[in-house]
Amino acid sequence: MGGTSDAHVVVLGAGFGGLTFCQAFRHPSARITCVDRQNHHLFQPLLYQVATAGLSAPDIAEPIRTILADHRNVSVRFDTVREVHLADREVVLDGGRLHYDYLVLALGGVTSYFGHPEWAECAPGLKTLDDALAIRRNVLLAFERAENEPDPVARQRLMTIAVVGGGPTGVELAGAFAELSRHVLRRDFRQIDPTQARIVLIEATPRILSHLPERLSTSARRHLERLGVEVLTSAPVKQMTHGRMELEGGMTIAADTMIWAAGVRAHPVTASLGVELDRAGRVKVNPDLSVPGHPEVFAIGDLALVLNPRGQPVPGVSPAAMQMARHVARIVTRELADLSRANSLAARPAFTYVDKGTMATIGRSAAVAKIGALELTGYLAWIGWLFVHLIFLIGFDNRLSVLLQWIYSYLTYKRGARIITGLDRPSNRGDSTQPDSCSDPASTSTKAK
Amino acid sequence: MGGTSDAHVVVLGAGFGGLTFCQAFRHPSARITCVDRQNHHLFQPLLYQVATAGLSAPDIAEPIRTILADHRNVSVRFDTVREVHLADREVVLDGGRLHYDYLVLALGGVTSYFGHPEWAECAPGLKTLDDALAIRRNVLLAFERAENEPDPVARQRLMTIAVVGGGPTGVELAGAFAELSRHVLRRDFRQIDPTQARIVLIEATPRILSHLPERLSTSARRHLERLGVEVLTSAPVKQMTHGRMELEGGMTIAADTMIWAAGVRAHPVTASLGVELDRAGRVKVNPDLSVPGHPEVFAIGDLALVLNPRGQPVPGVSPAAMQMARHVARIVTRELADLSRANSLAARPAFTYVDKGTMATIGRSAAVAKIGALELTGYLAWIGWLFVHLIFLIGFDNRLSVLLQWIYSYLTYKRGARIITGLDRPSNRGDSTQPDSCSDPASTSTKAK
Repeated sequence: MGGTSDAHVVVLGAGFGGLTFCQAFRHPSARITCVDRQNHHLFQPLLYQVATAGLSAPDIAEPIRTILADHRNVSVRFDTVREVHLADREVVLDGGRLHYDYLVLALGGVTSYFGHPEWAECAPGLKTLDDALAIRRNVLLAFERAENEPDPVARQRLMTIAVVGGGPTGVELAGAFAELSRHVLRRDFRQIDPTQARIVLIEATPRILSHLPERLSTSARRHLERLGVEVLTSAPVKQMTHGRMELEGGMTIAADTMIWAAGVRAHPVTASLGVELDRAGRVKVNPDLSVPGHPEVFAIGDLALVLNPRGQPVPGVSPAAMQMARHVARIVTRELADLSRANSLAARPAFTYVDKGTMATIGRSAAVAKIGALELTGYLAWIGWLFVHLIFLIGFDNRLSVLLQWIYSYLTYKRGARIITGLDRPSNRGDSTQPDSCSDPASTSTKAK
Repeated sequence: MGGTSDAHVVVLGAGFGGLTFCQAFRHPSARITCVDRQNHHLFQPLLYQVATAGLSAPDIAEPIRTILADHRNVSVRFDTVREVHLADREVVLDGGRLHYDYLVLALGGVTSYFGHPEWAECAPGLKTLDDALAIRRNVLLAFERAENEPDPVARQRLMTIAVVGGGPTGVELAGAFAELSRHVLRRDFRQIDPTQARIVLIEATPRILSHLPERLSTSARRHLERLGVEVLTSAPVKQMTHGRMELEGGMTIAADTMIWAAGVRAHPVTASLGVELDRAGRVKVNPDLSVPGHPEVFAIGDLALVLNPRGQPVPGVSPAAMQMARHVARIVTRELADLSRANSLAARPAFTYVDKGTMATIGRSAAVAKIGALELTGYLAWIGWLFVHLIFLIGFDNRLSVLLQWIYSYLTYKRGARIITGLDRPSNRGDSTQPDSCSDPASTSTKAK
């Protein structure tokens, strides 16, 4: 594969896939360059907790350099990927170019608005820490504005949060917002009653958590409704403007905070590859996870379309990305070792996904989980969710800090991270609660710049 | 004083002074409105730890509403103070006006550039969480850029941090940056050696920590130099541009990160009062802390000039602000009680400051402290510093989390908060390391917007 004993392996992305590859790769002399546009690896399954003021940003993130400090053959490069030129074996970054012998594409996904990119201004997605901090800021500011708002209609809009998308992220966000308003903020205000906040979860298909068995969807819905969340199913979004959403069927929702958790598509760099993609921009990889026609290039995680033996796509979850990373690391390690011993390439094994289960949490003490044939709901599933997430959090200090904050929040109904930052220019505080057109680029005064 | 049993007391600022007033005020029926432009109270003595990636923002901040949740007669208003009209007994906010019977001015100070406001663009101050997060981001980004910088002169500039001002904040920042580069970042990079970072502390007067006895200044300087900090004394700043600082005497320093910890002046609202101010904009208050000619208005904390019996100003430290707050709370509580019993006003007592000592920490295990006649240096002073700061941190969860992070950092030399956020637009990542004129408003691409 063009590799020598000092071959250069370039890994794009330091999410679960890219990082696992760097850790699992074992060749003694090959160099790895790992590129990410953030300086930190993010534990995305807990990102909704930062958005809902349960955890602080450093709790769920760890510098990539620190995670890889002991892997002396790995260089970390903090840069943005623009294009990949497969023919030249070259990656174009904002700050330069990298030539590779092997390439691992692990850039993950971006929020998809299904042909309505202008909705991004009205209803931001939740993919990065900055997204989460912006959502937290906007929700806390909306309650502050409501406290001083004399008009009851405007006040209700400020106290309404609409979450689009009934997958795990949407369900977890809606549950956490309901608890924030019902319990955490309950005693903080004098004019408004935060327990009157309206939390709406909007799902286009007939049921939430549609990747889980129907029994679990029903249980999740019941738990959410018990927390006070309005769950609307079979309700695709038709139109959006700032503060206002129209659903198919004619229902409209006036909500100062709208969050889009409905769709993900592959990182846009896949479009520069010139290979076959699916509708979500994912690379249709070979069974060994290599890119067709380019055995030296692999795509793993959310930007790869991998079919299991029954022809269904492997889900875009972190365990799948990590399994793919280990699979590719084994192939590349072995091929480089064989080359240095002047052996011929062995036939590559096909990737097989081992489903270890899937879960979603609903508020402070309920969850739904499917582990093999086992279906769990309620408190037991929540305890399972808690421990799985703690165990996989990277970094001892994070883990201890997160555990303590959870115990504290659980016992006291308080949340430690209700801090508004990012307002350092007073003009950012201007009242922007008037509905604007989403396509108006000037109407971002309360957004992070 | 115009008060009735449902008198309205307005408190401007929820720092140590304003918050302590709200907590110490005991009248059963009077209403308090506490106004702050942040939603959180900030534990400013630890702000340098957020700037140097030791703690996360929520660790040292607590929502004002939460702190005052049990004080049912206190309303919190999240708004910016513009002016005070003493004659009308009215406060003008961005979002409205407030009429008061008693007014407590507790807005604290702002960074002062001694007649060079244009330097704020080159060398930001450290007064808010957003300031601290911007400094952290800039320092971490500078090291990231250095890793990819081929030119050795530019690389050294990226790895140089200049801190102006040898008071406690400057000393603590310089010590913490030295440790960050010498120990924490040491193993993270492949091209640069962070232990070669240059940390310069610049003080205009002949010694650092000039409010402490000379022996302690000397000890602090020795500790800083042992950590690798260059300490320049008798070195006032003459001129600044982005990335470059010129000192009186001709020395120039090329530093990508420059921080201004040299001066504080009173919040600008004091200029709207029409009463006598000192050169730093502080109100020259009466012995009872009231504003001359306005017995219903008090100024406390950093925006008040209070002279002790020997004619020296009371220092701008949090214990002084808290003592002033309790003094004023006693006066106002008693006067409102007397009024409701139709008694005449008693003569007000004069404020006296009780100095409980002062301390500054230098890196991870040294400090200097003066407590009465006792002067402490080194490890013992550091242990004292640690416990005093932990005890006064507001909020149990913060305290435990901070203690654990300190223990962890102490044992491992790691820091948990080395996370760059606030880069959500890729264009913010553009290379802005070229020196620009400070007065160029476009040259803020790496600043928080």
